[in-house]
Amino acid sequence: MSTDKRIEPRTLKGFRDYPPATMLPRERLMETARRVYRSYGFSPIDTPALEYLEILTGKGSDETDRQLYRFQDHGERWVALRFDLTVPLARFAAQHIAELGTPFKRYHIAPVWRGENTQRGRYREFVQCDFDTIGTRAAAADIETALVIHDLFQALGFRDFAIRVNHRQVLNGLLERIGLGEQSTNVLRALDKLRKIGPEKVAEEMIATAGATRPQAEQVLKFAAVSGTNDEVLAQLGPLVAGSQRGEEGVARLAEIIAAVRGAGVAEERLAVDVSIARGLDYYTGVVFETFLGQLPGIGSVCSGGRYDNLAGLYTSQELPGIGASLGLDRLLAAMEELGLLEKVATPAPVFIPYFAADRLVDYLRLAAALRAAGMNVEVYPEARKLGQQLKYADKRGCRVALVQGEDELAAGQCQIKDLTSGQSQSVSLGDGFAEVVAAVQRLLTIGAQT
Amino acid sequence: MSTDKRIEPRTLKGFRDYPPATMLPRERLMETARRVYRSYGFSPIDTPALEYLEILTGKGSDETDRQLYRFQDHGERWVALRFDLTVPLARFAAQHIAELGTPFKRYHIAPVWRGENTQRGRYREFVQCDFDTIGTRAAAADIETALVIHDLFQALGFRDFAIRVNHRQVLNGLLERIGLGEQSTNVLRALDKLRKIGPEKVAEEMIATAGATRPQAEQVLKFAAVSGTNDEVLAQLGPLVAGSQRGEEGVARLAEIIAAVRGAGVAEERLAVDVSIARGLDYYTGVVFETFLGQLPGIGSVCSGGRYDNLAGLYTSQELPGIGASLGLDRLLAAMEELGLLEKVATPAPVFIPYFAADRLVDYLRLAAALRAAGMNVEVYPEARKLGQQLKYADKRGCRVALVQGEDELAAGQCQIKDLTSGQSQSVSLGDGFAEVVAAVQRLLTIGAQT
Repeated sequence: MSTDKRIEPRTLKGFRDYPPATMLPRERLMETARRVYRSYGFSPIDTPALEYLEILTGKGSDETDRQLYRFQDHGERWVALRFDLTVPLARFAAQHIAELGTPFKRYHIAPVWRGENTQRGRYREFVQCDFDTIGTRAAAADIETALVIHDLFQALGFRDFAIRVNHRQVLNGLLERIGLGEQSTNVLRALDKLRKIGPEKVAEEMIATAGATRPQAEQVLKFAAVSGTNDEVLAQLGPLVAGSQRGEEGVARLAEIIAAVRGAGVAEERLAVDVSIARGLDYYTGVVFETFLGQLPGIGSVCSGGRYDNLAGLYTSQELPGIGASLGLDRLLAAMEELGLLEKVATPAPVFIPYFAADRLVDYLRLAAALRAAGMNVEVYPEARKLGQQLKYADKRGCRVALVQGEDELAAGQCQIKDLTSGQSQSVSLGDGFAEVVAAVQRLLTIGAQT
Repeated sequence: MSTDKRIEPRTLKGFRDYPPATMLPRERLMETARRVYRSYGFSPIDTPALEYLEILTGKGSDETDRQLYRFQDHGERWVALRFDLTVPLARFAAQHIAELGTPFKRYHIAPVWRGENTQRGRYREFVQCDFDTIGTRAAAADIETALVIHDLFQALGFRDFAIRVNHRQVLNGLLERIGLGEQSTNVLRALDKLRKIGPEKVAEEMIATAGATRPQAEQVLKFAAVSGTNDEVLAQLGPLVAGSQRGEEGVARLAEIIAAVRGAGVAEERLAVDVSIARGLDYYTGVVFETFLGQLPGIGSVCSGGRYDNLAGLYTSQELPGIGASLGLDRLLAAMEELGLLEKVATPAPVFIPYFAADRLVDYLRLAAALRAAGMNVEVYPEARKLGQQLKYADKRGCRVALVQGEDELAAGQCQIKDLTSGQSQSVSLGDGFAEVVAAVQRLLTIGAQT
């Protein structure tokens, strides 16, 4: 291949590569999400990255329409890359739900594409991790959604997080009572910015965009500021929505969710009724969730969702109510990195076997096979180089244990187990079937994992 | 949402949805591949679905160029969807290898897109599962590639498969000796079709496209027909390539691989030297692999790969030799379906809890939580409907056990464990912490998994 034809290797603007050190924690996160979703009976689905353009346009906002990667395919069909996993779910459900039956619980972990402005450090390709229960209005599905989010963050190793829950009809009930029922979309859109811009700016926006009076805006803000324990908040909400059927139903649903989640054994502080949670999307009609990390509240919600009345109305006459939520994978990874929750390794293999004695490769392969059979990931260096060079390679990647066998060790039926963190070594007999080595390495890795 | 705006829900021509029944085995396969790749220290990477067009054109064949999904993005940059994972690996390596260091072992499981003719039942989006070791020419990397393929098929549950191995230089050595050294590309391209079109047609093609004489073509075919045990084949190859340095080196490398894989404990019949394996790609320069299923040889190779001299020559002056292979996910799934190796289920949850007594949801949630804590996947039906209707739902999805608790059972502190396969029921005490139920369900699921 001649030099004059050489092409500069670069990733497309707005896109990025994931080398091992960032891909390993991403995979761990996705695996944890899959495991938790499955533990509740959510099934995986996948849909094509490309859809007919008409399936995707007009489903999100003008902004998502503008951001669509759209083009004509080989058959001159107008197509586009999906910009989320909800619109494909709606199309999928309209097409297959008769055969699949309801309730239908699915998860979908897959990349989506948006031609966004990259100046804010955003990328044009990112992975969404969604789960939804469709075809039921039951409170049990709302409750389960909260439990899934709870179990997910527990499984990810967070000990300080809170799921904040609200109900659209509680807000709507209040707005009805104070004469803002018709302006709810603009009021909620303003209210959704409360954490970001503060109460005074929210009031100004309500007056400007929703035509609220100053007293009305203040009532909304007073309402959003209701606080206390869940029972206290629910007790205060009752009178505030009294007389509005929607509001009363919303409060009753919230009370049902709180009681069941409590009954299922979840600590009280993990799920909190928060009347200020509005979520910007018009889409939601019932309960809404956001999830915040205690140590990093400023990064915003890392898992959000809610209940909707009609998922697939654009594609089918069948009404499909449902509830779902989405884990913000990239935001969560950034948070975990900031909190030091990510191991700094670039290999899935904690165990490293240097290739020391040039004609003893088979001995190294056998030892590696024994460790793999015990469930450990093991890398054997492919070339018989200087030991120091090989250990440097292992250290750079973050291996934790090296099993050194030179001619002397092999002749003596021994193996030197070197802890790459402490630098300490111990000699262990290879024995019959490597049982002693396997046990010693397992011990070392377990101790390492606990510190 | 008004009816007049309704859009027909359909997948794009050449693309398909994966509902749970097909996505579950796909995920299982991908998870197994990840687990085996990691057990050898291969690390995950990911690269963008979209690349600059110039990165992708001219890297495969005229056919892949034609099949590229290409368009201009929002910044009027010409871009295209990747058609494989090897070209992105080359670009990635050229960009990052200085920082990552060699040897570099990566796996990459991700979708690729080709605007292929769909008439042959091919799809335009499919997942590739590649693993590669780059930056080394060592025999140990060739040997490890064979071991990874072996472990992968063992882990997938195949008991009858064979990895067929050959070496490009062995073929080239022979071609040199019989005066076809300059025509090797066309000769190997013809030879690669041996299984499909038979020896006579291959001979005709060699004569037509490589300008071989009839005796030359017959010598190639005689060479490709060398058979016997690995030791017998290697013994026959020696004299046939004698005098050609490349040929001799190729035979020596094959002998080294066979000896080490045997030494590592792999059954002899799993890896067979097969001189007829040529692989169509010009790209390969050393050892080449194909993998066949004993019960379905006709479907062709389900895992193929080989050694190359220079991965990223189009993007960098650094020479990056390597070896890799790719699991044919969709072909393998089709094979597993044909062999009845796929469970017919549409849920990851074998355990089903009907929602029977309307006000006892919390009891069902607690039981489910106890089973999940023991590692089981459990679905709780979200609505208190008739038991028969709920069990029909569970049965349709392929759940195996239902835990029935009506008012009577709950009052008596009992749970009815219903085996959905046999229809048999047993009553078990709920006890303290559900230990007895958990153990009984685990027992039932283990028995089910063994039959």
